[in-house]
Amino acid sequence: MRVLILGIDGYLGWSLALRLASKGYTIGGIDNFSRRECVSEMDSHSALPIHEMPERLKAFEDHFKKELFFSKGDLIHYDFVEQIFRDFKPEAIVHLGENPSAPYSMIDAKHAAWTQTNNIVGTLNVLYAMKNITPQGHLIKLGTMGEYGTPNIDIPEGFFEIEYRGRKENLPFPRQAGSWYHQSKVHDSNNVMLACRIWGLRSSDIMQGIVYGSRILEMNEDDRLLTRLDFDQCFGTAINRFCCQAVVDQPLSPFGKGHQKRGFLPLKDSIQCLTLVIENPPAQGEYRVFNQFEEVYDITQLALKVKSVGRDLGLKVEVKNVENPRYEAEEHYYKPDHKKLLELGYQPTKDMEAEIHIMLQDLIKYRDRIEAKKEVLIPDIHWDGKRKKVTYFHGK
Amino acid sequence: MRVLILGIDGYLGWSLALRLASKGYTIGGIDNFSRRECVSEMDSHSALPIHEMPERLKAFEDHFKKELFFSKGDLIHYDFVEQIFRDFKPEAIVHLGENPSAPYSMIDAKHAAWTQTNNIVGTLNVLYAMKNITPQGHLIKLGTMGEYGTPNIDIPEGFFEIEYRGRKENLPFPRQAGSWYHQSKVHDSNNVMLACRIWGLRSSDIMQGIVYGSRILEMNEDDRLLTRLDFDQCFGTAINRFCCQAVVDQPLSPFGKGHQKRGFLPLKDSIQCLTLVIENPPAQGEYRVFNQFEEVYDITQLALKVKSVGRDLGLKVEVKNVENPRYEAEEHYYKPDHKKLLELGYQPTKDMEAEIHIMLQDLIKYRDRIEAKKEVLIPDIHWDGKRKKVTYFHGK
Repeated sequence: MRVLILGIDGYLGWSLALRLASKGYTIGGIDNFSRRECVSEMDSHSALPIHEMPERLKAFEDHFKKELFFSKGDLIHYDFVEQIFRDFKPEAIVHLGENPSAPYSMIDAKHAAWTQTNNIVGTLNVLYAMKNITPQGHLIKLGTMGEYGTPNIDIPEGFFEIEYRGRKENLPFPRQAGSWYHQSKVHDSNNVMLACRIWGLRSSDIMQGIVYGSRILEMNEDDRLLTRLDFDQCFGTAINRFCCQAVVDQPLSPFGKGHQKRGFLPLKDSIQCLTLVIENPPAQGEYRVFNQFEEVYDITQLALKVKSVGRDLGLKVEVKNVENPRYEAEEHYYKPDHKKLLELGYQPTKDMEAEIHIMLQDLIKYRDRIEAKKEVLIPDIHWDGKRKKVTYFHGK
Repeated sequence: MRVLILGIDGYLGWSLALRLASKGYTIGGIDNFSRRECVSEMDSHSALPIHEMPERLKAFEDHFKKELFFSKGDLIHYDFVEQIFRDFKPEAIVHLGENPSAPYSMIDAKHAAWTQTNNIVGTLNVLYAMKNITPQGHLIKLGTMGEYGTPNIDIPEGFFEIEYRGRKENLPFPRQAGSWYHQSKVHDSNNVMLACRIWGLRSSDIMQGIVYGSRILEMNEDDRLLTRLDFDQCFGTAINRFCCQAVVDQPLSPFGKGHQKRGFLPLKDSIQCLTLVIENPPAQGEYRVFNQFEEVYDITQLALKVKSVGRDLGLKVEVKNVENPRYEAEEHYYKPDHKKLLELGYQPTKDMEAEIHIMLQDLIKYRDRIEAKKEVLIPDIHWDGKRKKVTYFHGK
């Protein structure tokens, strides 16, 4: 199968390319390297050193004995997107080519507009290229569990059957996302659903939980195959950031009361799930939604897990809550379904401690890289637009 | 009260300015004249001749003996938007400054991207300017009934209380819009709702039905005060287009089976409702939704009304269905609530025939303008991206 990965230079994109190549797929990829630029803008870098694309492509070829068809370019230019579809003729398109940061989108009006434009226009262009060039293709679109927000009822996988004033209907589950970035993903979901309805395209829309972890099996033999791992306030995700804090002896910092509940999954589970979705495409014209995570955890619970594993490795680790720069519920009901991937054969790792152990060992090797930029672990971007470092709580 | 009208050069914007001025309000307005440009791009013009802005402003001043604070500019430039808010300090902001055309958004990838970017970024910039400059202001945001689509259950006004798996919650009603344009309005609604939640702004989001009619009372004394009336496939609305067809002896052309049901209201009712909403602001932090229309009609029913009134005026009028260039349900359940505006005091006109009569008389005066461009009354933009004039049905 010919799989085109949009955003192949990223955390998930690069990892997925390695997995699919190891399974014999033909891989194409595009990237505009905006993630590298945005992380620089945050005065940070990846904790794990990654190479420039030419060296990555060389490592890929050395390892898999075949070419990765890479093209540098930006999804917001339709002509570029259409040309890639013409040249590569993908059977599956994995769309990871969006800006994934909530805090980045909340900096100011310009970052809000850029995030939404970048994500929405990129996705529209992919939909048009599919319609015009590869209408039988399968779009695997990365959304986020954050699209749903935290309603006071169970969250189904995309759609729910309800009764209202005596009539029944199967409806998209209402989205209540909490940042301009999360809203951009809601907008995308709505656009992708429409394209499937009016053009008969097919898509799997992945509401993904928060991914953590530093590697998948395919990276073990060659450090040149490592993927990026961010830890700045904008592009680092919760557990990855906690592990980086642990490594440089900075207190782990849950936001506010620290009882936000979210779905999490290790990097290797994310790649396992995406592969399953690619291998089990929907029918032509179908728009289906997966909630992709292993289990729901409370943020403080996670911090305590990192503390426990970190201490086994001889790290001094403390947990100290900081004021919450976000506007979000800190104690809430949260029960999202996650059955459809299990039905496709997803086998959850179910050993978070082991994953954290591996990640901490990886990060300890690169402690100096984190130490050099440790300031970026403390957020200063607030949801009300203010820019000021959060302070640690004195007592809880 | 100081009211800033975004898109003041448009069909509703200009009409609302006249009404509010006649009630003694101080009016500010901005426009980038993109509507004029887009209508030219469709090789069309307004059926009613409207003047350039300097003459419109002069007529306004002659009539109301006060200034209209106009500034030319584009909502997608944040610095421009913020400057206007600083200079004019609006207490109410009526946001009509979006591209309102479904077919225009369906032309190709570039028109889709432009429509969504233009509308979404403009609205984000307005929200940021409110947060930064006038956080007590009241945003009256024009959405569309088309955001809801045509679900097989009743449509509430924005939110509905449901029970799901034994728990209750009040949720935003799911949107299932049918074009990139309609989706842009859904995206806006989601963004505005978020801004109210996280920043404590207040907004009235108007899900408006299809507006028809050529004038409001304030235009009767001076033809320079007329508002635009479009009839091309992109910017003309259903009844207005039927009336233009009647005037140039072209068969009225419902799409497909012609049993699409939609909510409609005359121009003067739209202006009455918007004025009521401005005069009855929500509480700080509140996001409320109105379904703004007078009554639901079947498209064919409307064509027959235009035919009947047209024949009274001596016009030969036929109704002949054409193939449907859109992807939409042509026979469906449709029962949207519309109580909240009545509760605020809205007094519906309830005499569609009289409104059509006035409009036909206005249009007969400018028959030559419609005759010169009558080709644009027959659509050629299809939802599947094809560009080909629709054909009349031979028998039904």
